Amino acid sequence: MIVIGENISITAKAIGAAIKDRDPKPIVDLAKAQADAGADYIDVNIGPATKNGEDLMQWIVKSIQAEVDRPLVLDTKNVSAIEAGLKVHKGTAIINSVTGDQDKLDILMPLAKKYNAKIIGIALTDKGVPPDVDSRLEIVMNIVSSAMEHEVPMEDLYLDPIALPVAVLQEQVHNCIKALTVFKQLQELMGLPAQPKTTIGLSNVSQSSPPELKSLINRSMLMVLLSGGLDSAIIDPLDKDLMAAVKTFDILNNKILYAHSYLD
Amino acid sequence: MIVIGENISITAKAIGAAIKDRDPKPIVDLAKAQADAGADYIDVNIGPATKNGEDLMQWIVKSIQAEVDRPLVLDTKNVSAIEAGLKVHKGTAIINSVTGDQDKLDILMPLAKKYNAKIIGIALTDKGVPPDVDSRLEIVMNIVSSAMEHEVPMEDLYLDPIALPVAVLQEQVHNCIKALTVFKQLQELMGLPAQPKTTIGLSNVSQSSPPELKSLINRSMLMVLLSGGLDSAIIDPLDKDLMAAVKTFDILNNKILYAHSYLD
Repeated sequence: MIVIGENISITAKAIGAAIKDRDPKPIVDLAKAQADAGADYIDVNIGPATKNGEDLMQWIVKSIQAEVDRPLVLDTKNVSAIEAGLKVHKGTAIINSVTGDQDKLDILMPLAKKYNAKIIGIALTDKGVPPDVDSRLEIVMNIVSSAMEHEVPMEDLYLDPIALPVAVLQEQVHNCIKALTVFKQLQELMGLPAQPKTTIGLSNVSQSSPPELKSLINRSMLMVLLSGGLDSAIIDPLDKDLMAAVKTFDILNNKILYAHSYLD
Repeated sequence: MIVIGENISITAKAIGAAIKDRDPKPIVDLAKAQADAGADYIDVNIGPATKNGEDLMQWIVKSIQAEVDRPLVLDTKNVSAIEAGLKVHKGTAIINSVTGDQDKLDILMPLAKKYNAKIIGIALTDKGVPPDVDSRLEIVMNIVSSAMEHEVPMEDLYLDPIALPVAVLQEQVHNCIKALTVFKQLQELMGLPAQPKTTIGLSNVSQSSPPELKSLINRSMLMVLLSGGLDSAIIDPLDKDLMAAVKTFDILNNKILYAHSYLD
C-alpha cells in the first residue's frame, strides 16, 4: 500500500504557527519523521489559502523537498496554489483533490495532464455527501470520464470512496466499504484501458469518536479496506499500531517476506 | 461472527491436569470466563482420547453444561467419544472436525445427521496440507457432496480453509485467505440449495511466531477473513484486543449500533 502521511496540516497548531511565521523547521521535521516512519508521499494541507496561496505553496514545497526525498500531495481548494506548487515540485506530485463537480474537473484534470501529476478524485460534490453506493459510483464515473477526456492515465487517478465519521454517520461507513469494492471493478464496468487506483482519507472515520477509540477504529477500517483491494491511504504514519497492522496485512498476503523481526 | 472459544484443550497444562483428576472446576471456570467474554460456543478438545474417550467426553460435556449455558464443540479424533458426547449434549453441538477423507466422512456425516449436530469440514486430508487453493477447493467440494448425500443441511456445515503458521508456511496463509473467497461462492459453483458456512482455527496462523507478535497476527488475520465473509472462528475470546477488533468490524459494517461505549 502507498502511504500518504497526513500530518502536515494548517489545522495542526504547530504547523499553523510555522506557516504563519514562515518557519520551515517544524514542517520539515514532521515531513522527515513521516518519511522515516514509512510515508511514500507527504500531504501538505495549507487550507483554503485564499491569501498568498501561491507563494505559500511554493515556499512549503521547496522547503520540504530541499530536505526530504519524498514527492508531495498538494492539498488545498485554491487551484492557483496547486498550480504554483506543481511548477516547483520535483518528481511526480499528487493533487488532493478533485470532486465530481464539472467546473472543478474542467480546471484540475488539465492541470494534472499538463504537469504529469497524479490526482485524487473524491466521491463528493458541492451538493454534499452522497447518500449511498450508487451515488458514489455515479460521481466517480464522472471523474473517470473527465480523466479519460483530458488524457490523464487511469493509473494516475486515485478514487476515494469517502470515509465519514462512524460516530455520526455509521451507515455511510458501510457504504464507503461497499463502494470501494465497486470502484475496484471500474475497468470492467466502464471498459477502461486500465483500472484506476483507490485511496482513502482514513482518519475521518474516527472523527468525533473518543480519543481512546480512534486508533482502533482507524486501523480496523484500514484492514477492511486493504482486504477490499485499497491501493493507498492518507494516514498518520506515526501511529505505530496502524503501521504494524499494514505490515502484518502485507505479511499475511505474502507481499513481503516474513521474519520474526518484521516490525523492527 | 459466531465466536467459538478455543481455550479448553487437553494440551493446556491446567486443563490436562483437571481432566486427569476429573476435577470439573478449572474446566467449568474457563468455560464461564469464555462465555462471559463473548463466546457463543465452547470448544472442548480432549485430544486423541484413545483410552476411556467416551466416558471422558460425557463427563466434560455434562460438567460444563450443568454450569454454563452454551452449546459445545466436540473436538477429538475419537469418533466414539464424539458420539458419546452428542448423546448427552443439550442443544445443538458442533463436531470438530471432519477432513476430506472418505472413511471419515462416511462415519461423521451420518452422526451429524442423526444427532442434528453442526459439523466443521476442514480442507485437509490424511495426505497432509493441501498445497494450493484448488486442492483446498477439491477437498471441501468432496466434504460438501458427502453432507448433501447424508442430508446434513448446508447451513450446518462450517468449512475451514485451514490457517497454517505464517512463520513457517507464509504462502499457505495467502492461499487460506484466497480459498475462503472461493468457499464463499460454493453455492453458486456447485448449484447448492444454500451456502455452506465458514470458520477458521485462527491461532494456528501465529504458531511459531514470537509471543509479542501472536495477538497482532491473529487479529490481523481475523480482520482479513471477516472482510472475506468469514462466518465464525475458533479463537481465544479472552484476548481483549482480538474481541475489540471483532466488535469494531461489526461497527464499521453497520451490524451493531455504534455508541462511544461500544467496547464496554
